[in-house]
Amino acid sequence: MRGVIMFAPGDVRVEERTDPKIIDPTDAVIRITATCICGSDLWPYRGVETADHIAMGHEYVGVVEEIGDEVKTVKVGDFVVGSFVISDGTCEICLAGYPSKCVNAQFVSVGIGTQADMARIPYADGTLVATPGDPDPDLIPSLLTASDVLGTGWFAAVAAEVGSGKTVAVVGDGAVGLMGVLAAKQLGAERIIAMSRHPDRQALAREFGATDIVEERGDRGVARIRELTGGLGAHSVIEAVGTQESMMTSIRAARGGGHVGYVGVSHDVSLPGGELFFSEVHMFGGPAPVRRFLPELIQLIWDRRINPGRVFDLMIPIEQAAEGYKAMDERRATKVMLTL
Amino acid sequence: MRGVIMFAPGDVRVEERTDPKIIDPTDAVIRITATCICGSDLWPYRGVETADHIAMGHEYVGVVEEIGDEVKTVKVGDFVVGSFVISDGTCEICLAGYPSKCVNAQFVSVGIGTQADMARIPYADGTLVATPGDPDPDLIPSLLTASDVLGTGWFAAVAAEVGSGKTVAVVGDGAVGLMGVLAAKQLGAERIIAMSRHPDRQALAREFGATDIVEERGDRGVARIRELTGGLGAHSVIEAVGTQESMMTSIRAARGGGHVGYVGVSHDVSLPGGELFFSEVHMFGGPAPVRRFLPELIQLIWDRRINPGRVFDLMIPIEQAAEGYKAMDERRATKVMLTL
Repeated sequence: MRGVIMFAPGDVRVEERTDPKIIDPTDAVIRITATCICGSDLWPYRGVETADHIAMGHEYVGVVEEIGDEVKTVKVGDFVVGSFVISDGTCEICLAGYPSKCVNAQFVSVGIGTQADMARIPYADGTLVATPGDPDPDLIPSLLTASDVLGTGWFAAVAAEVGSGKTVAVVGDGAVGLMGVLAAKQLGAERIIAMSRHPDRQALAREFGATDIVEERGDRGVARIRELTGGLGAHSVIEAVGTQESMMTSIRAARGGGHVGYVGVSHDVSLPGGELFFSEVHMFGGPAPVRRFLPELIQLIWDRRINPGRVFDLMIPIEQAAEGYKAMDERRATKVMLTL
Repeated sequence: MRGVIMFAPGDVRVEERTDPKIIDPTDAVIRITATCICGSDLWPYRGVETADHIAMGHEYVGVVEEIGDEVKTVKVGDFVVGSFVISDGTCEICLAGYPSKCVNAQFVSVGIGTQADMARIPYADGTLVATPGDPDPDLIPSLLTASDVLGTGWFAAVAAEVGSGKTVAVVGDGAVGLMGVLAAKQLGAERIIAMSRHPDRQALAREFGATDIVEERGDRGVARIRELTGGLGAHSVIEAVGTQESMMTSIRAARGGGHVGYVGVSHDVSLPGGELFFSEVHMFGGPAPVRRFLPELIQLIWDRRINPGRVFDLMIPIEQAAEGYKAMDERRATKVMLTL
């Protein structure tokens, strides 16, 4: 089968990979319909993380091709959406709602790689969710977002305790931040302040529900958010970048007793204990427990109540993966979908 | 009036201070019945924070001597317990349950100093709570704990989402940690693991409800807690120290999706973003919103359902304050009550 391999930072190629097979009875093998390039794929692309012949990709939708003997909730021919973290669905941590910290958790990005024609998904019951039927083709981009970027933005909003009547600030205008805006709207936020200085992303943020745009960054951005909230700060802040500045902006933009939900993969971040202590904000985040939200998100998409697939501004065949990486790296594209 | 002044690190004296008077119509002046020395008073005492003629003390119970014209909920002659943070009780942050982040918040330790015969308490309605009547003398130590150390331990347990059936680890065996044990028991924890290597504090922890004691510290302590929890870690961790080690122990002792409630005043703490991200634990803490809990805590004490005053192992007249500081500094006393 074809698969995207990152040979080295900046060097992405489509190569021949061995077809996956069922190994464990809880496995499924799926034929991938669509996959995409994640903001986190840019870390190795840019050399911030090591990149040496990695099979890329962890977001995916597809059709079940084969299942192991113990798989019960998906069957051959089902169209499925899967989480970017494998989870068994049965351990105490999964049952508590944190499948991304499952005792058998495994990142799909490590050793699986879904930018490919097929993938073996361990613990299929705990990782995949079948759609109600065969999706209309126009729903596929939105279903694909549920695999990570929508599920992650949604988790950030839940972690930030977004709810009815609240003011939410969103730090980061990448795909996850935009999905955070969408999630905040769905979860009933009254006011959604998106931090963005890119006109096209501002427009999409407004389409997804943003009521205010703040173009300033860092402490000037914090000052603007405080101005907009009677000096108190936001009830909820969604952090979707993962840098020192974005984390500090998030903490400082939240009011005392408020909540920061952080989902930007943390890079070289160090939080000052004293400031955190006296800020008295709730902090929660990490790799999103997407599997928990999949049934609800799939239904919202199926019923056409949300259209998160709008976040893809470049859709190309997998053969052109290298161009997709380049476009995202150069910020010419917010989010790239690869078709198979 | 008499008042404890810290002239310099290690130099604590009882001096004459000016009697306080009503300044604002929302003030009350109270005659202090009992006050105490806080673990946080040791920071300046040890020279970790500056100490230059500071009026000490922020925990207090006493009798209202005079009130301003706008004070409505306490009257002259009432026995009252007050929070260690002044709060107006009316702002949006107070109403949301975070009076320690009130827009008019003021630390009693800064400029008031309750290790004294009297104190002016601004925003009396938002800061003080009257007891149901004149307390029996044996209730006074317990009522005094509600002012900070019990209220803080209670907040830590609430912040750590302690609840029925949960396993709670308590990092720190000082007065606040011990109060955290008591709070965890009251809030329904099934299992309470106290980290302590002092036999007398272990005994008090057991009296307050600890079911297990872990003597190891740092990562060995974390390993023991993981052993005791089937490898998963505790649902809730109460952090009551404020050092780098205690914070990291707390984060590492919590299971994925679990909660850390931190109330140890943070000193030279820096939290690694990457580890925090991938640990996926909820973090919340800071100066405790004691005022929120006072009515409930006073009632529990009044009904003799809890006896937190047990934490005082040295009770001395205020004239002997210097000896009290010394005893706490040398860990000969867990918590020192000063009587007036």
